[in-house]
Amino acid sequence: MTAGFTSTVSLTPGSVALVGAGPGAADLLTLRAWHCLQQADVVLHDLLVSPEVLAHVPEGVACLSVGKAGGRHSWAQADICALMAEKARAGLRVVRLKGGDPFIFGRGGEEMEALLSAGIPVQVVPGITAAVGAAAWLGFPLTHRDHAHSCVFVTGHLQHDQLALNWTALAQPRQTVVIYMGVTGVETISTQLQAAGLSGDTPVAIVRYATCPAQEVFVTSLSGLPGVVRGDSRGEGRGREVRAPALLIIGTVVSLLQATPS
Amino acid sequence: MTAGFTSTVSLTPGSVALVGAGPGAADLLTLRAWHCLQQADVVLHDLLVSPEVLAHVPEGVACLSVGKAGGRHSWAQADICALMAEKARAGLRVVRLKGGDPFIFGRGGEEMEALLSAGIPVQVVPGITAAVGAAAWLGFPLTHRDHAHSCVFVTGHLQHDQLALNWTALAQPRQTVVIYMGVTGVETISTQLQAAGLSGDTPVAIVRYATCPAQEVFVTSLSGLPGVVRGDSRGEGRGREVRAPALLIIGTVVSLLQATPS
Repeated sequence: MTAGFTSTVSLTPGSVALVGAGPGAADLLTLRAWHCLQQADVVLHDLLVSPEVLAHVPEGVACLSVGKAGGRHSWAQADICALMAEKARAGLRVVRLKGGDPFIFGRGGEEMEALLSAGIPVQVVPGITAAVGAAAWLGFPLTHRDHAHSCVFVTGHLQHDQLALNWTALAQPRQTVVIYMGVTGVETISTQLQAAGLSGDTPVAIVRYATCPAQEVFVTSLSGLPGVVRGDSRGEGRGREVRAPALLIIGTVVSLLQATPS
Repeated sequence: MTAGFTSTVSLTPGSVALVGAGPGAADLLTLRAWHCLQQADVVLHDLLVSPEVLAHVPEGVACLSVGKAGGRHSWAQADICALMAEKARAGLRVVRLKGGDPFIFGRGGEEMEALLSAGIPVQVVPGITAAVGAAAWLGFPLTHRDHAHSCVFVTGHLQHDQLALNWTALAQPRQTVVIYMGVTGVETISTQLQAAGLSGDTPVAIVRYATCPAQEVFVTSLSGLPGVVRGDSRGEGRGREVRAPALLIIGTVVSLLQATPS
């Protein structure tokens, strides 16, 4: 179905819009984000932005991948900022399209600071972050009066091969823990959360490419998490390994999940 | 500007879609949410859903407020669920429109459970939660490598006049704390977070009606929070009181805020 809607957003030549692309499904862009794409002269996007969303970029608009791929030759943050500034100074309307929300583990804050200090106007368009998209698709809430009064988002990205999180603060009862980029740290996550008091039976959902046709979901327990990610025969994801990037959602709300796609 | 887009979502007669309306701005609905509204036979909405968003409901579609207003005669949760079930059983395409995201402090989980146990098909459409919308509008990130490695969402809604949160877990360094519905508990929040080790200088943003024309923003410190909400002459919001509902965002990321609207 095709239909009309109104947005008052307009992109100024010589400015940058940091736009959240949402979790991946083409229609989980906001109306404002969609409208920005229609006005863009150039789109610079992350690797995490799905092909479905990129299909919304109008034909003829330059669309450059500036993704940072782990272990491969990829764009440095400073080079991405320099390219955005260069395009804006050339008078273009620049859309910087980031997976999820720009301000939740998206380095949107750093990009905004760099652009503002270069004198370039910036606006930010929020997006559905991956955990919110995954929860809607899987049919369980991130908070629930009987299960979780709080929800915490952390990054499980290793720094210097270490994962230094406050495990006691995470391992509370009645809290949902969402770990972005948690796959490489699952051994530590499982061990430390249990040591801090969270039951090994606590349900865990592992989600890749949330809301996209390529979506993969594994449901396990905190104690079973490393085995499923390794692809042990004991895990529900048996015979396969869970590759990064993936999202971990840990908490009893996961038990409310309505359907596990095949 | 009016333009076209495609969505594959279709609402089945006799089913309910729990749809996130986002923080309030008309164009922060997702394409999918917008598309659901165009197909609805009846829309049941919260008080928190803004007039701007409700303007997207097509003319002629029944649009009922089932909001729960504190202190006033209002809808009980069970009655809302019963009404949704009744409308669905009558063969209508029911859109239940909820402020923000249905699964973050929206009781979407409870409504989903009630509908499924009544045998009524449900789908969930995620929305931009208020904190994400506010952060984008105000120009500061919820996470940032130099400021906050985690972001926690809690509800400050009093139960039996008490606010029982794990203050130690909240009062961590390098964490952004978002408290939904926190206005009535500000005295406790300020006192307990400081007692748990958070500096009284920690910046706090108080946001009402995020992203809407009616938006109000107050920036203060953790120690100054109760005074601003009371409307003391010491606060930046001097001479006025901050009324519920409002969102509190607590953490050093607030110092990155780009502009405080008048």
